[in-house]
Amino acid sequence: MIMKKYRIDDLQINNLYIKQDTTAFCFGTDAVLLANFAEPKKNAEILDIGTGNGIIPILLSAKTSAKKITGLEIQHNSAELAKENIELNNLSSLINIIEGDIKDENVLPSACFDYITCNPPYKKVGTGLENPKDTLAIARHEIMCTLEDIIKASSRLLKSKGKIALVHKPERTAEIIYTMKKHRIEAKKMLPVYPREGEKPCLILIEGVKDGGAEISILPPLYVYDKNGNYSVNISDLYNKRMNLNE
Amino acid sequence: MIMKKYRIDDLQINNLYIKQDTTAFCFGTDAVLLANFAEPKKNAEILDIGTGNGIIPILLSAKTSAKKITGLEIQHNSAELAKENIELNNLSSLINIIEGDIKDENVLPSACFDYITCNPPYKKVGTGLENPKDTLAIARHEIMCTLEDIIKASSRLLKSKGKIALVHKPERTAEIIYTMKKHRIEAKKMLPVYPREGEKPCLILIEGVKDGGAEISILPPLYVYDKNGNYSVNISDLYNKRMNLNE
Repeated sequence: MIMKKYRIDDLQINNLYIKQDTTAFCFGTDAVLLANFAEPKKNAEILDIGTGNGIIPILLSAKTSAKKITGLEIQHNSAELAKENIELNNLSSLINIIEGDIKDENVLPSACFDYITCNPPYKKVGTGLENPKDTLAIARHEIMCTLEDIIKASSRLLKSKGKIALVHKPERTAEIIYTMKKHRIEAKKMLPVYPREGEKPCLILIEGVKDGGAEISILPPLYVYDKNGNYSVNISDLYNKRMNLNE
Repeated sequence: MIMKKYRIDDLQINNLYIKQDTTAFCFGTDAVLLANFAEPKKNAEILDIGTGNGIIPILLSAKTSAKKITGLEIQHNSAELAKENIELNNLSSLINIIEGDIKDENVLPSACFDYITCNPPYKKVGTGLENPKDTLAIARHEIMCTLEDIIKASSRLLKSKGKIALVHKPERTAEIIYTMKKHRIEAKKMLPVYPREGEKPCLILIEGVKDGGAEISILPPLYVYDKNGNYSVNISDLYNKRMNLNE
């Protein structure tokens, strides 16, 4: 049995903190990028699919004035940790964590959400998986659900014209776009994230609209690092300014 | 009746020239970008759909060692001009211009091409069209054929694992990807072209593979102009070096 190890990080936004299980999946730049990319309207009903330790609902609480944010998590330990994090930040009146499976049609009511976020497992299930029951493996590989499971469920859960924002590996971009289309979601906005100039992208952010019209907006590239290996102006802005509504 | 006006441009590659009807559609950066982006293998059977004045087959002749390049053009005057341009460059043994409609299933034999290029009309037919019979309007608007007509026909014309390279407006990216998928073509490579840093892209280049597997490669962005308004190093390279096999 692995001893769990926890640490608490200051999110440096609105005095928010996050407790993380360092033997499980800790949030990274992708969660911050997704929370920043997502633009739910005022009073939106928001759902975060596969919420893990609750990082995205917590970050979203700092930048949106949502009516309610629901975090859905399939893994018991992660869901418990997310609940603890919501309490730690006194966000229980805004954020609700539910332990459940997105593939279960009764887990949440249909056509009730205005905005869905998801930082899904990036990797398809391959041969290199040592322990598919491992918390970390489930967060990283499509063991419990596939990209299509998430998009199919999102289409059911979104109101018409409701939106979904995903962060994923760039090589899954085409698959995301045509799987969305298959389930009545039109990809409408795309932000490629590059480690630095001249390199291939490391992440892609895509926003789709249920029953949306056929035109996509590709944003200027976002570079994570500048030529000196420091965080780029864009990323620093994102951490220090755009996410921080207190300024 | 409009008087036609012609000019002959030096393509500055392999002593190639192009005669253009200045009252019709003249080739632009997009044709040069597409010819550069396309990477047909040696001895490939290549088809250029909507070849106009023949610019893409002529540019491809300089960078590929194709077995045969066919240019298909629906408009009589453009097809005649393309034929004239092929003769002007002594390329009749390599390039064949056919006047015909891509929607006609008998215009070309099925599953015979290794590589297809297409610089299609960018705009959907809307309300702002003054003269839909105009050569220029046909080159710019989807009057004679739609994006789906082109992709559907390409799927029929390509061999399995054959490729298609398209240049288009970025806002059509999602539509291109899922229309390709609908017709057994997987988008495998994508190059966003930006006017300059910090701006939204002006063009997208997409390569699809018939019966290809599901992973796309997004290339580092290509900027047309640098901060001083001059052609960027990448674009200058493309005009001066990468396209010019004589160096």
